[in-house]
Amino acid sequence: MNEQQKACVGKRIPIDALHEFCTEVMVRHGLTPDHARATADVLVTTDTWGVFTHGTRQIVPLMNNVDHKAIDATAQPEIASDGPSWAIVDGHGAMPPASGVYAMDLAIEKARRTGIAYVGVKHSNHFGAAGYYAVHAARQGLIGLSMSNVDVCMTVPFARAPSIGTNPISYAVPVRGENPVFLDIATSVVAISKVLTAKAAGTPIPDNWLVDENGQPTTDASSYPGTGSIVPMTAHKGYGIAFLIEVLSGILTGASFLSGINRWIDPEPKPADQGQAYIAVDVDAMMAPHVFADRMKKAVAEIRSAPKAAGHDRVYLPGEMEWERRDDAVANGLLLPDYVLMNLFTVADKNGLSDRLIGLFG
Amino acid sequence: MNEQQKACVGKRIPIDALHEFCTEVMVRHGLTPDHARATADVLVTTDTWGVFTHGTRQIVPLMNNVDHKAIDATAQPEIASDGPSWAIVDGHGAMPPASGVYAMDLAIEKARRTGIAYVGVKHSNHFGAAGYYAVHAARQGLIGLSMSNVDVCMTVPFARAPSIGTNPISYAVPVRGENPVFLDIATSVVAISKVLTAKAAGTPIPDNWLVDENGQPTTDASSYPGTGSIVPMTAHKGYGIAFLIEVLSGILTGASFLSGINRWIDPEPKPADQGQAYIAVDVDAMMAPHVFADRMKKAVAEIRSAPKAAGHDRVYLPGEMEWERRDDAVANGLLLPDYVLMNLFTVADKNGLSDRLIGLFG
Repeated sequence: MNEQQKACVGKRIPIDALHEFCTEVMVRHGLTPDHARATADVLVTTDTWGVFTHGTRQIVPLMNNVDHKAIDATAQPEIASDGPSWAIVDGHGAMPPASGVYAMDLAIEKARRTGIAYVGVKHSNHFGAAGYYAVHAARQGLIGLSMSNVDVCMTVPFARAPSIGTNPISYAVPVRGENPVFLDIATSVVAISKVLTAKAAGTPIPDNWLVDENGQPTTDASSYPGTGSIVPMTAHKGYGIAFLIEVLSGILTGASFLSGINRWIDPEPKPADQGQAYIAVDVDAMMAPHVFADRMKKAVAEIRSAPKAAGHDRVYLPGEMEWERRDDAVANGLLLPDYVLMNLFTVADKNGLSDRLIGLFG
Repeated sequence: MNEQQKACVGKRIPIDALHEFCTEVMVRHGLTPDHARATADVLVTTDTWGVFTHGTRQIVPLMNNVDHKAIDATAQPEIASDGPSWAIVDGHGAMPPASGVYAMDLAIEKARRTGIAYVGVKHSNHFGAAGYYAVHAARQGLIGLSMSNVDVCMTVPFARAPSIGTNPISYAVPVRGENPVFLDIATSVVAISKVLTAKAAGTPIPDNWLVDENGQPTTDASSYPGTGSIVPMTAHKGYGIAFLIEVLSGILTGASFLSGINRWIDPEPKPADQGQAYIAVDVDAMMAPHVFADRMKKAVAEIRSAPKAAGHDRVYLPGEMEWERRDDAVANGLLLPDYVLMNLFTVADKNGLSDRLIGLFG
């Protein structure tokens, strides 16, 4: 970063301004304005949750995929086949957030007619934070689930090399008068970003995060990626859940699966051909809306009133920390970490938008 | 156990004979023959998987629930409300394995018409191993999921007391020419039975299994149940998944949830009013059967061929160990652990069936 750019460190940026900037960048890379806006919304929303690893930082590798035609800037997703409560969508390599919202909207529409619906997407790529799509359903009163297979990077019990992806899964449940309860997790014991942070800092990691080239625990983060593999959460449990996600997102959709998936973050990426799965459950079909709302309220209140551990004065619902971070970002702007700013200025420089970006910081 | 009973330790019992014995016991406690057979099938199948904690051992607490009318020996589950791809079943307190098979059959039937279906059950009780019902769907060519809420026994991050159940979830995916891939897990870091085993032996446990009355890690298994609470798998991940299961099994079905659930293993149990959820996905609707079969074969082969960790010569698919144990049990009979035999002889003695049970061991 140059001096003017460095001066932005520690300053906040309004989320609408960041959204517009990201949209402009993506339009300059050839995306249709609606796909650019859809993608900006996924990335900025993820930043507001404080999940900066999956936020606007990713505009750099995403645009690299567009530039290498691993993502098709102008393609439109379409229904390949469908039935009363299911569909397979061909993403045609289009920008995954656009395919994702399209697929979840389709799942919502079908669920409203039948009760529950599954929509799988093939010929997709990295779709950002799975939670965005689940929350999209919950905002419309449905329970949403979203998941994706990803390139192999995680070992499985008794193996010693990457054998499956850290396949993420998310859900969101509407709560009347509040933000949805939501969870968005990888099936690994820890996010890969934490391994890479330790690697950059040269600090040892707990011995249950990675295994080395012999499948033995290692505290050396520098082995990833390379000889090291990340470990599934609670061993066979994370492995088993990752396999289910592989089936629903990859095998059943017609996408690539396991080693067939190309790494979207390669410097010269090829189409990843990942698959995603979206499920929507129409709560209102099954239970009077006020009854479900009352029961959720009661459950949420009971969890919040749990006796607190020493040193803690609150128990959080899944996603509640993320919503509080978002409230702050909406009110006061986003305070982005340095590594996110570096990515944003990289893409700004490339598109002659550096001055505009600098001007957005308060 | 008396001398004759003790002589059965270390001997095998044919699974059909054990099934008949369990059915006879349950009929003597008032169950209809079909509900008794359905329940015996769940319990014996679970034993054949080597999951003895959830197998025929449970006939003692289950019959205690029947004797206390916490389970209704003659009630029949029925559809309370339904739509094209969903139903809520009122279990009416009937034997949960009977409600479970009824509900999963209904989910299968609806999924075959629409693609995917959800069936929730309210007014249920302990349904044994979740995996039984998922496998039931996979045997008919569908992907099956089953899950249940259970009485609170698990803490959540920043709390110090039981706040949610160890809500189990299971799935099964058909593999042509092989047993289904299947997973059946609690959302806790470890099965409660392992804590109780360490407690009985007086041995310390790893410090990430339980928290004490202050919410701090403890290696003292004797604190459970009581002041200790079991910890969710990977903290917020297991907690988050347990909450989703609570919603789909309990809140959305009209069953009790969280602290509203009565403990089915109490000496004088009241109706537990647990809820269960079953989801079936009709693979054949979405993909030509031979294509799905080929893709699953390829995925399964790839996982099996993963480079092995030092000291290991095989990588297992989820559920594969359980199927190999079952093959052995089907061919050679079941070798039941002492604590299972003690439970079986307890219930045999009570029903005047001890001699018959002794006669079944080879």
